[in-house]
Amino acid sequence: MFKIRTNHGETLYSHGESILESLQNSGIYLQASCGGKGVCGRCKIRVIEGKIKTEVFFSITEQERAKGYVLACQSYPESDIFIEIPEKLITVSERISKAYTDIIEKHFKEKQLNPSVKKIHLKLRQPSIEDSQADFERIKQVLGKVSISRRLITELPEILRNKKWQTAVTVADGEVVDFTDSILYGAAIDIGTTTIACALVDLENGRIAGTTTCYNSQIAYGDDVITRIIYASENPEGLKILRKCVVDDVNALINAISKRHKNCKIFYFSLAGNTTMMHIFWGINPEYIRHEPYTPAINHYPLWKASDAELLSEPEIPVYTLPSVAGYVGGDIVGGVLASGMYMNDELSLFIDIGTNGEIVIGNREWLVTASTSAGPCFEGSGIKCGMRATAGALEAFSYNAETDKFEIKVIGETKPAGICGSGMIDIVSELFSSGVIDRKGKLLMESSRWIKTIDYETAFFITENCYICQSDIDNIIRAKAAIYAGISTLLNEVGIKEKDIKKVYIAGGFGEFLNVKKAIRIGMLPNLLEDKFSFIGNASLSGAVLTLLSTELREEAESIADRMTYIDLSRSKMFMDEYVSALFLPHTDSERFE
Amino acid sequence: MFKIRTNHGETLYSHGESILESLQNSGIYLQASCGGKGVCGRCKIRVIEGKIKTEVFFSITEQERAKGYVLACQSYPESDIFIEIPEKLITVSERISKAYTDIIEKHFKEKQLNPSVKKIHLKLRQPSIEDSQADFERIKQVLGKVSISRRLITELPEILRNKKWQTAVTVADGEVVDFTDSILYGAAIDIGTTTIACALVDLENGRIAGTTTCYNSQIAYGDDVITRIIYASENPEGLKILRKCVVDDVNALINAISKRHKNCKIFYFSLAGNTTMMHIFWGINPEYIRHEPYTPAINHYPLWKASDAELLSEPEIPVYTLPSVAGYVGGDIVGGVLASGMYMNDELSLFIDIGTNGEIVIGNREWLVTASTSAGPCFEGSGIKCGMRATAGALEAFSYNAETDKFEIKVIGETKPAGICGSGMIDIVSELFSSGVIDRKGKLLMESSRWIKTIDYETAFFITENCYICQSDIDNIIRAKAAIYAGISTLLNEVGIKEKDIKKVYIAGGFGEFLNVKKAIRIGMLPNLLEDKFSFIGNASLSGAVLTLLSTELREEAESIADRMTYIDLSRSKMFMDEYVSALFLPHTDSERFE
Repeated sequence: MFKIRTNHGETLYSHGESILESLQNSGIYLQASCGGKGVCGRCKIRVIEGKIKTEVFFSITEQERAKGYVLACQSYPESDIFIEIPEKLITVSERISKAYTDIIEKHFKEKQLNPSVKKIHLKLRQPSIEDSQADFERIKQVLGKVSISRRLITELPEILRNKKWQTAVTVADGEVVDFTDSILYGAAIDIGTTTIACALVDLENGRIAGTTTCYNSQIAYGDDVITRIIYASENPEGLKILRKCVVDDVNALINAISKRHKNCKIFYFSLAGNTTMMHIFWGINPEYIRHEPYTPAINHYPLWKASDAELLSEPEIPVYTLPSVAGYVGGDIVGGVLASGMYMNDELSLFIDIGTNGEIVIGNREWLVTASTSAGPCFEGSGIKCGMRATAGALEAFSYNAETDKFEIKVIGETKPAGICGSGMIDIVSELFSSGVIDRKGKLLMESSRWIKTIDYETAFFITENCYICQSDIDNIIRAKAAIYAGISTLLNEVGIKEKDIKKVYIAGGFGEFLNVKKAIRIGMLPNLLEDKFSFIGNASLSGAVLTLLSTELREEAESIADRMTYIDLSRSKMFMDEYVSALFLPHTDSERFE
Repeated sequence: MFKIRTNHGETLYSHGESILESLQNSGIYLQASCGGKGVCGRCKIRVIEGKIKTEVFFSITEQERAKGYVLACQSYPESDIFIEIPEKLITVSERISKAYTDIIEKHFKEKQLNPSVKKIHLKLRQPSIEDSQADFERIKQVLGKVSISRRLITELPEILRNKKWQTAVTVADGEVVDFTDSILYGAAIDIGTTTIACALVDLENGRIAGTTTCYNSQIAYGDDVITRIIYASENPEGLKILRKCVVDDVNALINAISKRHKNCKIFYFSLAGNTTMMHIFWGINPEYIRHEPYTPAINHYPLWKASDAELLSEPEIPVYTLPSVAGYVGGDIVGGVLASGMYMNDELSLFIDIGTNGEIVIGNREWLVTASTSAGPCFEGSGIKCGMRATAGALEAFSYNAETDKFEIKVIGETKPAGICGSGMIDIVSELFSSGVIDRKGKLLMESSRWIKTIDYETAFFITENCYICQSDIDNIIRAKAAIYAGISTLLNEVGIKEKDIKKVYIAGGFGEFLNVKKAIRIGMLPNLLEDKFSFIGNASLSGAVLTLLSTELREEAESIADRMTYIDLSRSKMFMDEYVSALFLPHTDSERFE
């Protein structure tokens, strides 16, 4: 297998793939309008080193050719190669990992990386009759007090003798876990109700080696946590089935991401997810999360092992679980607060994670309060007819000209739209509302646009023949935005703070990065604050998990954040219900709030 | 099942057994000359409480009958009973546990028991909407920082709710391991090359609830550690086979001892054994222990789990392994030194453990040196034609009258001799030597006694028709005693100490308690010191393991003893070879040493 090195990371080449495909498979997406047919001429890359086979030179000038430019979709490595990818070509996934990289850089600018797993190269003295110390004691003489599993000690005598007493030793949380000289990878995994994301991290330099996502296969058993809890607790094999779904999903992600890296061994796992997802992942019945007083079995998880989790790796590899705060505020939010850094801020911040649940945190370095509200899975593409995740093919932005009744769209990967992701939905509802195509209740006005047609007995606004948004989709989106806004305003009220006191707003969630904040305010989803107060921090839960992989101190910080957060239960709040009903209009019943 | 309580411990009654059999099966052996036929009248016990069925009253007077005396062998419980067993009736196993009890009392006279596993009764506040803390955090609020396995946390929510928030919690080494209110039993296991012994200990009061022993099934693959190492390392499945032997043996012992105690759950294991036995038990190839420089894979074992060991118990139960000092001085010796208390003595002591290997320790509170010598398994009954362990039926003492050519014997359990145990062998060789039936080289003199006959082309001294000692047995015994004596004298020489400087001698080993020290000195096995310097501490390895179960501090003491012991390798010592050859005579070539 040849290696493809680039200025945006590296990957292994599988025979038969084009360079474009190979990069794509490893999470590096290039813009290629024609879908890799060699006719749009956009995927120009420059070969710096190595040999490639390439025949089509569409849109490449003689000068470019002389400099080594080729079309990625029409080129095939014939040796290890090093290529340069122009910045503007990079799309989606790579942009997501750039978001992590920014967070990581922010956290580690002054601090050293300090992962809980370290590799040490040992040169031991060979035993002799004068020094017949036991093999493992010989290692402890250098490393100090460390432990080892029964399985690994059985391999030690042969390893030391075969390697002539010079070996790499990997130590995770005081336990020897490996004797190979592999790259020290860790895997951060965010288990959402709808989406699961995995980041492979090089723990020696903090670099994200790859990211990948998939839908949570549990979706087949219900869209939200409540239906999952019911399925898990009321069917005899329910918990087992749901657990298998998520473990298989995570293993598939690990497998997909690992096979792109030579001898990829994972030495540490860090998991973030909501309380129910974490209960199911670990095989714990989540039943009591659903019943008052909504009590989880556990918030701070011991450091269990990959074998306990049935994860694909050596059995003794530690699996860290980010702690929960309550039944409806989980480790994903703790990870998000960690990644945002709001727990260190002097000024007051608002953190919103928009996933299937909308979780809200308000506070600063002194105090943190949190609440949860059920947004539903629509912004993750589920429950919306043409909904999809923010991956290649998703309509992520939309603008509409009322005068001409024409619209413009932006699709991830610049292809034809395959569906609509969360940010696209917000754009569509916002643009159609401000131009009068839908009314304050969200009703599509039949005669207002030529793109409105009927499908399956419903009115719908058509973007392409196969991509549309229908009345029930819009109703769903309005319910979701109302839940989020009502959660924010109720929580602010509970702690006696006004919207204008908020100095910073962190928006987390899979779609966060592409969200048009003005349009989100226009539909009344986000509080009406100046745009420069908002930051989009992407999948902050995943970033938080990455941070806990890279630093033992930040792992302890996550534990402490969970302990410091005060949970406020909105489910019994009359104010929340009033706020929710008021927010079912566009932008809001109380129009003063969105002047 | 009825319960039988006695002044020597209690047991459960299995239907159909006599009280005598029932007691025997739980390790309480009564003297019953007739073997339980109701005709010798010795097994008289007194029923204090409860109902029994009994019909034969041989040798019981009317007065005795009125007081409740019955024959144990002819009586059957018909309810829970409480019986009194006269002290003089108690034999063997019970005497062995008395030896432990003495050691334990010595250790805990001033100190408190402090096992690493404790049971706490919790009364938790029921969760409410104002206090919706997670279940495990609710427990931690009382217990402080504890961990829990993934398996057990899955059971916690149901347990707490079923028990209405009041439960017993058992914590072992900071990990919650049980929620039942079972008696806190621990199991101490001594894995010898020839014999395996197990003691069930009540960790709340330090009482030995039962002991049991069996031969190590590995004997089928070789008598001594060297042949075992060769088998383990040179056969593809050798290690696996030997491991299975010992694990199955230990599990059979645990099973046998557990079923005598209602709902018997074991919460802690402590293992002592020589370095090779411990390597094989944990599945570690012992190969390098055999080759210069005789390096073990590990001396100080991490605290692994019952699931790692494949022991019969809940998977998370900790298994402590007493540390080794070197390839040929293992955790059995560290346990023995701990049990003897010599590591605390001001005066100079000598510790000898006579098993298949003879290990020797010399020292005091300041320093400890140790060496090992291969005695062979004969004193444990193996490799001797009529050899057996010191259990019921074993000839344990022998005296001979040269004038009448008559002998007297003592058999454990006062039955006909079924074989000869170690102390019996020493008595026989000693008595026959001092009365001229064997010469200084150990040769049986054909005409010297009417009991000498030929069997299988060998001369032999016959005790009964089926119980005899033959020439090759005597040669074996002499080689064994020579190895032990040569080890002692070489080690004394190495550290520049004279026999007379030794103020205390601790003799450990399965047969230690019954050993006639005068006779052992007479054959030149033990140094010629005053008899009152000798103490017999029985299976000190097992006692050491019991002590580490009962006290975390003594477990740390064991770790420290192992680190403080200096190992001296006799295998390269010319002095040892000279000493050994000189000791192949009775009592010794240098007769001055045994005047």
